[in-house]
Amino acid sequence: MRVVILGGAGFLGQKLTKALLEKGDIKGQAISKLLVFDRFEANLEADERLEQITGDISQPTTLEKLILPDTDVIIHLAAIVSGEAEQNFDLGMQINLHATEALLEVCRKLNKPPQFLFASSIAVFGGDMPEIIEDNTAPTPQSSYGAQKAICELLINDYSRKGFIDGIILRFPTIVVRPGKPNAATSTFASSIIREPLQGQEAICPVTGDTKLWILSPRQAIRSAVKALDMDTDLLGSHRTLSLPGITVSVQDMVTSLEEISGKAVVDRIVWQHSHFIQQIVGSWPSRFTARRALELGFEPDASMTEIIQNFIEDDLVKT
Amino acid sequence: MRVVILGGAGFLGQKLTKALLEKGDIKGQAISKLLVFDRFEANLEADERLEQITGDISQPTTLEKLILPDTDVIIHLAAIVSGEAEQNFDLGMQINLHATEALLEVCRKLNKPPQFLFASSIAVFGGDMPEIIEDNTAPTPQSSYGAQKAICELLINDYSRKGFIDGIILRFPTIVVRPGKPNAATSTFASSIIREPLQGQEAICPVTGDTKLWILSPRQAIRSAVKALDMDTDLLGSHRTLSLPGITVSVQDMVTSLEEISGKAVVDRIVWQHSHFIQQIVGSWPSRFTARRALELGFEPDASMTEIIQNFIEDDLVKT
Repeated sequence: MRVVILGGAGFLGQKLTKALLEKGDIKGQAISKLLVFDRFEANLEADERLEQITGDISQPTTLEKLILPDTDVIIHLAAIVSGEAEQNFDLGMQINLHATEALLEVCRKLNKPPQFLFASSIAVFGGDMPEIIEDNTAPTPQSSYGAQKAICELLINDYSRKGFIDGIILRFPTIVVRPGKPNAATSTFASSIIREPLQGQEAICPVTGDTKLWILSPRQAIRSAVKALDMDTDLLGSHRTLSLPGITVSVQDMVTSLEEISGKAVVDRIVWQHSHFIQQIVGSWPSRFTARRALELGFEPDASMTEIIQNFIEDDLVKT
Repeated sequence: MRVVILGGAGFLGQKLTKALLEKGDIKGQAISKLLVFDRFEANLEADERLEQITGDISQPTTLEKLILPDTDVIIHLAAIVSGEAEQNFDLGMQINLHATEALLEVCRKLNKPPQFLFASSIAVFGGDMPEIIEDNTAPTPQSSYGAQKAICELLINDYSRKGFIDGIILRFPTIVVRPGKPNAATSTFASSIIREPLQGQEAICPVTGDTKLWILSPRQAIRSAVKALDMDTDLLGSHRTLSLPGITVSVQDMVTSLEEISGKAVVDRIVWQHSHFIQQIVGSWPSRFTARRALELGFEPDASMTEIIQNFIEDDLVKT
């Protein structure tokens, strides 16, 4: 089968590419071709099934070149992140909304309705909302990124209902600990305060210790994505969106776990430099979900903050 | 002030045009120009403030001609109705989604952020949902029309949050009794079974008597729209969508009220001709809402089914 990963050179895309090549199949069908598309080339080991293409997803011709008529699976991870989509509204609309609209139209014209996995985010919630988010709580995004994700969810649901695609949407918690470098996401500090100290660098924590987050590790995120690709979407009923289970941690919990694992000298590399601006945004994010449907379908959260940090050390720590 | 009503030749648009011309102002500012746009010309009394333009809203040049830089208020009622949008997916997407996207972009470039009233619908709900819809229940549309309305809600919320427009979204219950002729909306029977018998004609009722609907009269719909145009949108907080209060009636309630007002001979013009297809769709619609926010803001439902029928007789009955 032919698989395309859009935004495949990001950290999640790279990990998912490796996981899929290692597993070798989706729903028991061997992967014969895995096409990774992004703005830049990913650092991936050579594999005869793997092909990388770089380009601009918002160019109409790009999609037609990428998504050949016999494409079986499309994994759509490409996005302008929250901070950037807020600063540059037009770019966010172009990539996060209009490119997805165009992609869905291309999918509709394939030989058969493709599997379509979409990465959404808890950023669809914000503002006035209940303390605990249920699966049927209305998205009330307070960022353009969140609004664009919520809109794509509705489109993918409708294209699936019409039988144009076989869609599944995963609403990811904040991913901690992301490997690599800080990015333009407002949540970037949540990974930085673990990653940088472990790698011998300072990291700024712009929020108070009692700030709560709903988080998921990259390892568990990839397991969830692979599971979603393998699952029978009939089990989803009339609604293709799943809020993935995470764990609720305070920033202080994160720091305490880090100290238990790595000692005081590492934790002392965190510089507590408060930002009212970031505190306000992060404080408006939901930190508790029931995630009932996903749990019932067998999706799993991480066991603990300690395990999340240990997994990062095993999988992604850059030794200095 | 300059006001534009898109889709202004529909029954709601015509009634709103009359109401606004009679009232003469929005938020205390005199209406100097009221431009009614639709595919066809409305049957409206001449008024020096009134101008009618006909055309295709999906043509890019149309919007720029209509929405001049000094436009103060835009009322967006133009839509492909539910049944038609389901049968003709491309047309529904073009008018209900892409034309609204283009309209919002035009609005963003005006001299100042315009007031923007959007007509949404309870069709944003369907499928698996709670028995009573709360203001924060997630839209789970089971029609392309409903999906397109839910998407426009999110866009208008985000354009308002960014300060590009000053938006307000009214989620209308099923409007009963609509004047005129049956249309391509799946809900069209709900008006037909009152309107046609009163006008001396037969009407088919395709659903069972115990089928429940959430309804609002045209008179109350117009009152709500006028109130929404006059209200301080700061009262809406971070979310611009209001589910309007309606009343829950069974089809049998409707028929009983009609018989009380007009007698058995009138009611005998209803032909009970069951359609499994329509029953399934209508049965999937929500029939109970709390509508708490709108009630707190002073929006009001109709008093009773009897009053709704009496208002229709007063306002819209075509004497035969």
